[in-house]
Amino acid sequence: MCRICLTLAYDGTDYAGWQVQPGQRTVQGVLERALRPLIGVGEDVRVHASGRTDSGVHALGQVAHVDVPTSRRDLPWQKALNATLPPDVRVVAAREVPATFHARFSAISKTYAYTLWLDPDYVLPQRRRHVWHCGPLDLNALDRAAAFLLGEQDFAAFRNTGTETRSTVRTMHRVWRSSGVHPAECVLRFQASGFLKQMVRNLTGCLVAVGRGKAEPENVRSYLKEGDRSAAPATAPAQGLCLERVEYPDVPFPDGNGDEHQMGSSRAPARG
Amino acid sequence: MCRICLTLAYDGTDYAGWQVQPGQRTVQGVLERALRPLIGVGEDVRVHASGRTDSGVHALGQVAHVDVPTSRRDLPWQKALNATLPPDVRVVAAREVPATFHARFSAISKTYAYTLWLDPDYVLPQRRRHVWHCGPLDLNALDRAAAFLLGEQDFAAFRNTGTETRSTVRTMHRVWRSSGVHPAECVLRFQASGFLKQMVRNLTGCLVAVGRGKAEPENVRSYLKEGDRSAAPATAPAQGLCLERVEYPDVPFPDGNGDEHQMGSSRAPARG
Repeated sequence: MCRICLTLAYDGTDYAGWQVQPGQRTVQGVLERALRPLIGVGEDVRVHASGRTDSGVHALGQVAHVDVPTSRRDLPWQKALNATLPPDVRVVAAREVPATFHARFSAISKTYAYTLWLDPDYVLPQRRRHVWHCGPLDLNALDRAAAFLLGEQDFAAFRNTGTETRSTVRTMHRVWRSSGVHPAECVLRFQASGFLKQMVRNLTGCLVAVGRGKAEPENVRSYLKEGDRSAAPATAPAQGLCLERVEYPDVPFPDGNGDEHQMGSSRAPARG
Repeated sequence: MCRICLTLAYDGTDYAGWQVQPGQRTVQGVLERALRPLIGVGEDVRVHASGRTDSGVHALGQVAHVDVPTSRRDLPWQKALNATLPPDVRVVAAREVPATFHARFSAISKTYAYTLWLDPDYVLPQRRRHVWHCGPLDLNALDRAAAFLLGEQDFAAFRNTGTETRSTVRTMHRVWRSSGVHPAECVLRFQASGFLKQMVRNLTGCLVAVGRGKAEPENVRSYLKEGDRSAAPATAPAQGLCLERVEYPDVPFPDGNGDEHQMGSSRAPARG
């Protein structure tokens, strides 16, 4: 066998998330179905992603690996997969990687982007599947709140209840704000060693609550300290969220995203 | 009665174009249905647009007017309409205009944008409804071809067959090329006194043929001269096309588009 690493972009609107679930259309499901005939009859196919994305969440640079028979290693994987995948999932890049590479465990950090729509009156139809219409925000207050998220912290207050993880400690390398493709957009980006379930949507919901004046920036510190999900503001909707990029230490990987990023240089092991 | 002018944005993907047609979902149809309860029971509603857009074609700044009872003139039209319109049609701006204003006949020019996707391998899923995946092009050849389109000309070769118009002469004020929201995109913009049916898609099909080396830039001159639709290259698909803006001489109108445009200053009367 040899290991192929795929960079994937998808429009998550019509998917019940990444992970295969019976009777549901999932990104993993359509990808494994597209891989099966390329790998050979009777072969079992299992794709491993850097992490699951929730229902309705998008990706520009999800990373996944799959083991294929050595006889197939030279297939034009990108072209062959894109020929049968539905148009809302695309292979942005494909390359062979060492068997020591693991899409999830080799990752050192990930970057998520959450796009807010600040105009009070309307969302541009062309952008409605990719933004949250939260309306005007006090961005200075939001920035002050975001500063409390940096560093190694226990993010239990921003983890969805009912999920199991050994630890809820993660390291937030960067949180930054930039303009989007339309002047009404504001993009929040989060780069961390790993993310808990719905963590970015919970953080965004919290930052938007501060931006709306419903919470004080300093409240973020107490939410973190108390670790009580039900005390922190509500979760932001899925459609504004996008997994932009997964960072690996040794495998330089083609970028699924045209934006320029100034990435942090942390080499902390990935979690979650 | 008083006249309300609406600037409209829509995602044309799920519409059979602007114009009302029996049994079809059209932009005019959903807009008139949303207007009816606001205008009053038993009132007939007719919305007049700057022009029709074809099935699958988008808009950022379509302009339409509607006459409403004077007693309703102070309704918050944008908010009231957006509350009931489907999310793929939005009122970007609404204002009262003089009864002498006519969305179609007062227009002096229009600007259409056609977005090409130049990457050979894949279209980003997030952009698939708004671009044509034409692959790599010789943009210098395309630019040389575009120069032949400028000025007052007979565009019969770029008019869809089977349509009726008094004249096929239009004035092309500008054709220009810019980058899009993704590095793989190239946006062609056309500003003219008016456009014939499918003219922008036919012009784009022609420019792409030149960019692919299937036609010479100089061929554009002969297509124009011969006026034979069947001699010119094939029509570009609908989903890359967007009506960005309609220009009027006296009514300064809010812009539905965040891009900066350097508009021409022609005051030639609108046609088509």
